Amino acid sequence: MDNFEKLIIYGKNAVIEALKAARPINALYVIKDGKGLSEHIAIAKKAGIVIKEANPDKLNSMSEGNRHGGIAAELASAEYSSVEEILAVRDKPFIIIADEIEDPHNLGALIRTAEAAGADGFIIPKRRSVQLTGAVYAASAGACAYLKIARVTNLTDTIKTLKKHNIWVYGAEADGEPYTGVDFSGGGVCLVIGSEGQGLSRLVRENCDHIVSIPMYGSMNSLNASVSGGILMYDIAMKIRRKGGGF
Amino acid sequence: MDNFEKLIIYGKNAVIEALKAARPINALYVIKDGKGLSEHIAIAKKAGIVIKEANPDKLNSMSEGNRHGGIAAELASAEYSSVEEILAVRDKPFIIIADEIEDPHNLGALIRTAEAAGADGFIIPKRRSVQLTGAVYAASAGACAYLKIARVTNLTDTIKTLKKHNIWVYGAEADGEPYTGVDFSGGGVCLVIGSEGQGLSRLVRENCDHIVSIPMYGSMNSLNASVSGGILMYDIAMKIRRKGGGF
Repeated sequence: MDNFEKLIIYGKNAVIEALKAARPINALYVIKDGKGLSEHIAIAKKAGIVIKEANPDKLNSMSEGNRHGGIAAELASAEYSSVEEILAVRDKPFIIIADEIEDPHNLGALIRTAEAAGADGFIIPKRRSVQLTGAVYAASAGACAYLKIARVTNLTDTIKTLKKHNIWVYGAEADGEPYTGVDFSGGGVCLVIGSEGQGLSRLVRENCDHIVSIPMYGSMNSLNASVSGGILMYDIAMKIRRKGGGF
Repeated sequence: MDNFEKLIIYGKNAVIEALKAARPINALYVIKDGKGLSEHIAIAKKAGIVIKEANPDKLNSMSEGNRHGGIAAELASAEYSSVEEILAVRDKPFIIIADEIEDPHNLGALIRTAEAAGADGFIIPKRRSVQLTGAVYAASAGACAYLKIARVTNLTDTIKTLKKHNIWVYGAEADGEPYTGVDFSGGGVCLVIGSEGQGLSRLVRENCDHIVSIPMYGSMNSLNASVSGGILMYDIAMKIRRKGGGF
């Protein structure tokens, strides 16, 4: 485990999922007469979590000016998992790596999609990437509370470790093999998604087993990082399932 | 054609695509000594477009505080296409409808993905939806300049018109048939994507031929609207192509 001191999360979805997942919460901050918050309050009361009334200024400050829906929570810590914990989930795991994603909305949407697609874990680098902030939690609609998320010092070393565990590593980049022709079976699968502007970093790319790409049929030459990640994650998830991949 | 008086667009990608697509531009506004803008300036000069130097305050004001990358352009008008123009593209068209999307980032990402997936047109309602603003242009990375986009008064009437043209209308909603089992062939295809919070409006849903959904394998019960739209658009595009759908 690798922890922050504490983390403020906000937004109805992010907070309800943290409550349902029984994440360690120090205190819940609720606006007076807020709507759509009764389930939050009921779960918090049952779990013995301290509930405090907060005015709009306090909540705006906690959410750094982002939309909070009248509720915020202070997590005891942002618990990261380790790569070993992710590898321990199953024999042929499905893992996502986000290489240097800087936009919290993109990282949050990627985590939300990974969780929905049945991924076993998500890995981010410690540097040159947004970390698990309140904005990422909110953009993930709370999926951060469920998915095992690890952060690592050196992605290239991590990729080498995954390969030793019989996991095939696929990097997403514009000049690869069309994903439609790739069957993604035969072992565990790791999908590496590059940054919004730069794509995969050189060493990461060189260590991938295959480079896959999404065909572009119009004038554009790329998609939003969270959209292309979603298309590939679901294609992988469906192909693994069709092969009876143990999900 | 259905036009605005004028539209300010901003951001390197949005502006370069409008220039490449030869959209009618009244004037280009460029920051002094801006980096990565030489291609923009060269195309504008060749096309005889007025180029004005603008200071950061002016550009911030034009972009309403959003990131502008040192460049903005005033379009003579935001030209919408008509549904008839979209229907005229090919015999069995591929059309996207966005039902009441409110977030410009989601609408822009959906337009970008639709253009990349080879859709023939995109339809939005005039009310209860974000329109083609500068923020949508920027979020589409300029795809708005290429894709035919229509806006209509009554989506239900539009759906009825599409059905008369042998187009199958698929609504995306949580309780539908898994998309993986749907073959999306046999005619034109229209995919209807609902709003972020509410999904499809009642009348729109009732007029769809089929409701399709994305299976959720974790604890989440929905995806970001632009991600789910992207997964479905590419699945449709690939299935149509595999059947030789004339793309």
